[in-house]
Amino acid sequence: MSSNAVNELADELSKLKAVDILPQNVERWEETKAFLLQVVDVLLGYIKEENDRSSKILDFHHPEDMKKLIDLTIPEHPMPLAELVDSCKKVLKLGVKTGHPRFFNQISCGLDLVSMAGEWLTATANTNMFTYEISPVYILMEKEVMRKMMDLIGWPADVGDCIFTPGGAIANTYAMNAARHFFWPRAKPLGMTSVPTLCCFTSEESHYSIKGAAALLGIGVDNCFSIESDSVGRMVPEALEKKIIEAKKEGLHPFFVCATGGTTVYGAFDPLNQVADICERHKIWFHVDAAWGGGLLLSSEHRYKLSGIERAYSVTWNPHKLLGALLQCSACFIRQDGLLFQCNQMSADYLFQQDKPYDVSYDTGDKAIQCGRHNDIFKFWLMWRSKGMEGYRAQINRLMELCAYFTHRIKSTAGFEMVVEKPEFLNICFWYVPPSLRSLDKKEKMLRLEKIAPKIKAKMMERGTTMVGYQPDKQRPNFFRMIISNQAITEDDLDFLIDEIIDIAKDL
Amino acid sequence: MSSNAVNELADELSKLKAVDILPQNVERWEETKAFLLQVVDVLLGYIKEENDRSSKILDFHHPEDMKKLIDLTIPEHPMPLAELVDSCKKVLKLGVKTGHPRFFNQISCGLDLVSMAGEWLTATANTNMFTYEISPVYILMEKEVMRKMMDLIGWPADVGDCIFTPGGAIANTYAMNAARHFFWPRAKPLGMTSVPTLCCFTSEESHYSIKGAAALLGIGVDNCFSIESDSVGRMVPEALEKKIIEAKKEGLHPFFVCATGGTTVYGAFDPLNQVADICERHKIWFHVDAAWGGGLLLSSEHRYKLSGIERAYSVTWNPHKLLGALLQCSACFIRQDGLLFQCNQMSADYLFQQDKPYDVSYDTGDKAIQCGRHNDIFKFWLMWRSKGMEGYRAQINRLMELCAYFTHRIKSTAGFEMVVEKPEFLNICFWYVPPSLRSLDKKEKMLRLEKIAPKIKAKMMERGTTMVGYQPDKQRPNFFRMIISNQAITEDDLDFLIDEIIDIAKDL
Repeated sequence: MSSNAVNELADELSKLKAVDILPQNVERWEETKAFLLQVVDVLLGYIKEENDRSSKILDFHHPEDMKKLIDLTIPEHPMPLAELVDSCKKVLKLGVKTGHPRFFNQISCGLDLVSMAGEWLTATANTNMFTYEISPVYILMEKEVMRKMMDLIGWPADVGDCIFTPGGAIANTYAMNAARHFFWPRAKPLGMTSVPTLCCFTSEESHYSIKGAAALLGIGVDNCFSIESDSVGRMVPEALEKKIIEAKKEGLHPFFVCATGGTTVYGAFDPLNQVADICERHKIWFHVDAAWGGGLLLSSEHRYKLSGIERAYSVTWNPHKLLGALLQCSACFIRQDGLLFQCNQMSADYLFQQDKPYDVSYDTGDKAIQCGRHNDIFKFWLMWRSKGMEGYRAQINRLMELCAYFTHRIKSTAGFEMVVEKPEFLNICFWYVPPSLRSLDKKEKMLRLEKIAPKIKAKMMERGTTMVGYQPDKQRPNFFRMIISNQAITEDDLDFLIDEIIDIAKDL
Repeated sequence: MSSNAVNELADELSKLKAVDILPQNVERWEETKAFLLQVVDVLLGYIKEENDRSSKILDFHHPEDMKKLIDLTIPEHPMPLAELVDSCKKVLKLGVKTGHPRFFNQISCGLDLVSMAGEWLTATANTNMFTYEISPVYILMEKEVMRKMMDLIGWPADVGDCIFTPGGAIANTYAMNAARHFFWPRAKPLGMTSVPTLCCFTSEESHYSIKGAAALLGIGVDNCFSIESDSVGRMVPEALEKKIIEAKKEGLHPFFVCATGGTTVYGAFDPLNQVADICERHKIWFHVDAAWGGGLLLSSEHRYKLSGIERAYSVTWNPHKLLGALLQCSACFIRQDGLLFQCNQMSADYLFQQDKPYDVSYDTGDKAIQCGRHNDIFKFWLMWRSKGMEGYRAQINRLMELCAYFTHRIKSTAGFEMVVEKPEFLNICFWYVPPSLRSLDKKEKMLRLEKIAPKIKAKMMERGTTMVGYQPDKQRPNFFRMIISNQAITEDDLDFLIDEIIDIAKDL
């Protein structure tokens, strides 16, 4: 476009309001297109910058300062389209580039551009997943993908059901609710006062949403027992069985065990087969929270870590984690077909009419605890097609190699210490001991270390060059939790993090 | 671009795979951009077509036929980028154009293009709402917007908290859970067996998610009493109070009443002040489910219908309904500040560290039952700015006028009969009586009418020109539920629906 035309357009968009373009004013297609393309231009600029390693991940501002940098108020009068485009620019500039190859802060990292393109389409299609009537293709797509995932879990072809959920916490809640319904269907009509006091079990390293689900479902956090884990973060099966027996003796009714396939902090894998054996012996629902680790099932080299998952009654698996789908994309798998419906069905007449002209078994809404449900499948399906089975396998294996590389670097660089010597997965937990602390005795060092990670992290955020999370754990002082899940990460990025930490901490 | 350049590009994208472009291969920015712009081109084409009233809303295919029209399988090898673009085209072609101005099938209709642009940005930013650390701007944006919404509800400036939720059903679940925690905080640690048998109340016309929440929370569907509603769909307050007194006599503990501000089928508004009085008298939590009707608060002319909502302890309000934000955008408001935290907090060390360098009261994650939470605020904020307060007011008033117009047309057109004579809101429920049925006696006519709406709807879907929902209700045979919520609707579109129904039904 000539610079003249660009100026004219900018001029026009600064006069037009939303009501002047589509959908209200169908005469103004060209202006509508111009507005959307301007937004796309801003987004493309952002993507390019995010992938430029010399760009900053963030400009950190405290909340009170941030409020001065951007006007967030809702105006009395409509704002012109050009100002909306400016708002987009500004918001992106003040945000955190979570797709930057040196952002290692969360388990969900990276920005897969095919998945992103898929999410753009999802927004444009703006449909709801409750009925085949309005989401025919996406419903079939879900069925196809969930079957593929259940095959990977290892369930027989005629077994299993699934629901895509807004995040893993809700997926875990679905699983616990299904388990309750399986054993105590009368809880649905009559509530928990109609059943004995239930209890459930999960490792102390498991995700907090298991306790959250116990609270929400009226089971009670105190009836969700934390089972000891070993030094690398895996649940100790003997401790589990002991606690189950104790609970029974106390008159409680154990009904649900959660084993974790890839814990949040250490990336540990609970011994699934041993836990499954215990669940079988005691007739307890065996749930596997593989929100984070589930993706390993796509690697023939590494899927053995989840051996035993095929015995699960239910599985949580978030494609928005290891597989890199955009937020959100989570699924809860239930082995027993029909249970999700029985458990959640409320049979609303206005949505799930039985006299529709098509096979209404394709209407999925009545197995959900949501009514409207966002389409989380398309972005995942499109991305999976872009990689194929072999692409994912290669991607996951590559991440595991990078993890080995980083572990090696940590072990061989002065001042760095592993928290868990041999990481099982893509979490590498480590301390950095600044020179001034290295000669202290162990007790004193550990005491002082508590404050080191937060200090380094704070300076890191000020610099804005990289980001990594930290936390304490029981007897261990604050340590960093490195996550290697962004497919864009290279060895250089890992070296950069190490150098940056050394540099930041040199004066501590 | 010259046609030569276009051909070259198409040729290139048919060879490239996802791994060949960003984020893996930063050298290939031009190709990355070309791929994304091709997807955008497909989306723009779709938007243009969707807004063309002569285009079809859908090509209906039964599930088994649909499976033959599109290959949904996950391939072994990666698919080239050009094929992914083709998949996008195909999926859109086979889908339902929910933003078409003649799609009246759901409460959430229409495609606001500013909100859509906002969702594109949200996808690109791909961040998570749990901490200020990674979502500084969006967290502040949520605070700003939720304050504005609470002002509209009518709560004092220093009162209230809010969480954006994945849909209204989950918002209602939050409210019921908060109510339980308010009265019986020990249910969180000890579960429902530690508290008396609770019960709650909602009108028979209310959304099914209230019963769903009672099931999930372990209260029990049978302990969620359906209160009679009058002929226009409003809860009968006397019936509510009678039932509360009865329940108490039976030893139950009433704790939660849901009044609906805009019911799903009839669009009725429960008498909020009367319900609030009853709740006050009996010390029961007063919840208003204004998922659908909440938007009326933005119209000074119509907000009186929600008079009394300011007395609510909690409110559900979905901006993705009347306000037209893209799916999903829902919020649960809790009057008592701090309660959401107390109720849902699990204090995960790895996310909500208390030794962060900023004011951690801005971390919202620990008041959610989700862990990761999708950014649903930006698309709404941007759209609200595009309209301003006055734009929304005008838009809502216009929809109410269209509703009056359509009601008038229904009443004055032979064969059409209103189910509820005077709709309170944007739901217009009506029967169409084909000529062959008009001379039958009332009983026989009603009997035969049961099959008419499904037949018309089936033919409508075959034609693909318009879509409107139907359902039966207690003593009433299947009727149509017209929803006027798409800002693009004109009088012509309403006339079209009427003519189309007459034409389809002429041979019934």
